[in-house]
Amino acid sequence: MGFFHEGHLTLMRRSRDRDGVVVVSLFVNPTQFGPGEDYEVYPRDFDRDASMAQTERVDLLFAPSVVEMYPPGDATSVEVTGDLTARLCGAYRPGHFRGVTTVVAKLFNIVQPDRAYFGEKDYQQLLVVRRMAQDLRLPVDIIAVPIVREPDGLAMSSRNTRLNAQERQAATVLHRALEKGREVHRNGTRDADAILAQVRSMIAEERSVKVQYAELSDAESLAPIERVEGRAVLALAAYVGGTRLIDNIILGDA
Amino acid sequence: MGFFHEGHLTLMRRSRDRDGVVVVSLFVNPTQFGPGEDYEVYPRDFDRDASMAQTERVDLLFAPSVVEMYPPGDATSVEVTGDLTARLCGAYRPGHFRGVTTVVAKLFNIVQPDRAYFGEKDYQQLLVVRRMAQDLRLPVDIIAVPIVREPDGLAMSSRNTRLNAQERQAATVLHRALEKGREVHRNGTRDADAILAQVRSMIAEERSVKVQYAELSDAESLAPIERVEGRAVLALAAYVGGTRLIDNIILGDA
Repeated sequence: MGFFHEGHLTLMRRSRDRDGVVVVSLFVNPTQFGPGEDYEVYPRDFDRDASMAQTERVDLLFAPSVVEMYPPGDATSVEVTGDLTARLCGAYRPGHFRGVTTVVAKLFNIVQPDRAYFGEKDYQQLLVVRRMAQDLRLPVDIIAVPIVREPDGLAMSSRNTRLNAQERQAATVLHRALEKGREVHRNGTRDADAILAQVRSMIAEERSVKVQYAELSDAESLAPIERVEGRAVLALAAYVGGTRLIDNIILGDA
Repeated sequence: MGFFHEGHLTLMRRSRDRDGVVVVSLFVNPTQFGPGEDYEVYPRDFDRDASMAQTERVDLLFAPSVVEMYPPGDATSVEVTGDLTARLCGAYRPGHFRGVTTVVAKLFNIVQPDRAYFGEKDYQQLLVVRRMAQDLRLPVDIIAVPIVREPDGLAMSSRNTRLNAQERQAATVLHRALEKGREVHRNGTRDADAILAQVRSMIAEERSVKVQYAELSDAESLAPIERVEGRAVLALAAYVGGTRLIDNIILGDA
């Protein structure tokens, strides 16, 4: 969706290191925004993005117009149903993942990549896209790339540019709360509610941050879990002032 | 869906005449049948179909199992919305076209054909698949092949094998009624209801045939029309005894 940051540049570098031809898509996709969401104010700067992609030696920057991706008469959508899309962001953004899978299917068919790189910051999106590609037998490998964080831990996001100085400082609580959850888990707590209570309690100390959800889910199926036995994803969404941010951390990894 | 007849064989021949490699899919797709429809009793004969495909010098017969096309955890569907799927068969078979587009998208991605041949007997399906391929930018040309009919005009269908002798005779009224509609149109009638009244009236003479729908629609968009000015499709579905048959004819062609 552009307004590139180190997270995006890391995806480009991972591909540049491995692939013969690197294609980057740049498209703020209207169908994955709901009414009242931030489609209109989502940060955009084509010239800056094009320059950054060039610096990363990207071969092709694909920046279609909205009408190119959704011409008049367009009527087809691609949807993943079930836990993968019903919970977490899916519960608060109806139609969001349908918009994501629809545009990603189109992009895949246009570009026909051998590999596609997605950041783990949008962890649910990564799993949904992987499911879609697998179910529809799209001949593409979905490569997951770890979250890139600011020095103070805030996950890189184009939306971070919309935070004022006070909000930017407050937003660091999200990563600290996830690390708190990891620590509680490492110390032996397995009960999901007990872990989540600590996470929510830490975020509640920041008055300008309002949690939308903080959940523990199976790291593969995103099914809800009561106890953390295997790999689990601790994922949250929160409003920092008027800006909605997401972050996550994996528990139970080796 | 197999139980090949001359309509299917014509598709194979059209491809054999033109394409380097001919792949035929053979799969009775459960997701395009609704509750109470004829999935269980749909005619099947793999050995007969394989022999017929071999006679047509097909290179590859792709006959997957249901679990191969819909493995555990499968959760993705492809859907075309709007007039193309809401009317005609779509109005009476909720979910049918979603099942069709989902399985065809999978088949296209597995086989990756340059061209795919569809019969005009399933006219709505043809337009829906073409729309899906265009919207998702699938790199495949959808080729429409005219209806193949029995000598008495009945459109070829695997389901014709389920008609008893009396029903088989009665079923010829469907094509005769479509030809009646064409004649009325050729004689200058443009009012859709007036044309359809003649079509329905002729079918009503056969007591064992019950019309489900008989409609005139724009031949490209399938939007309903009140007057036949450009190309229109006169399409119908009817029960002959317990067997549902469809047929159609194009009006306003050169």
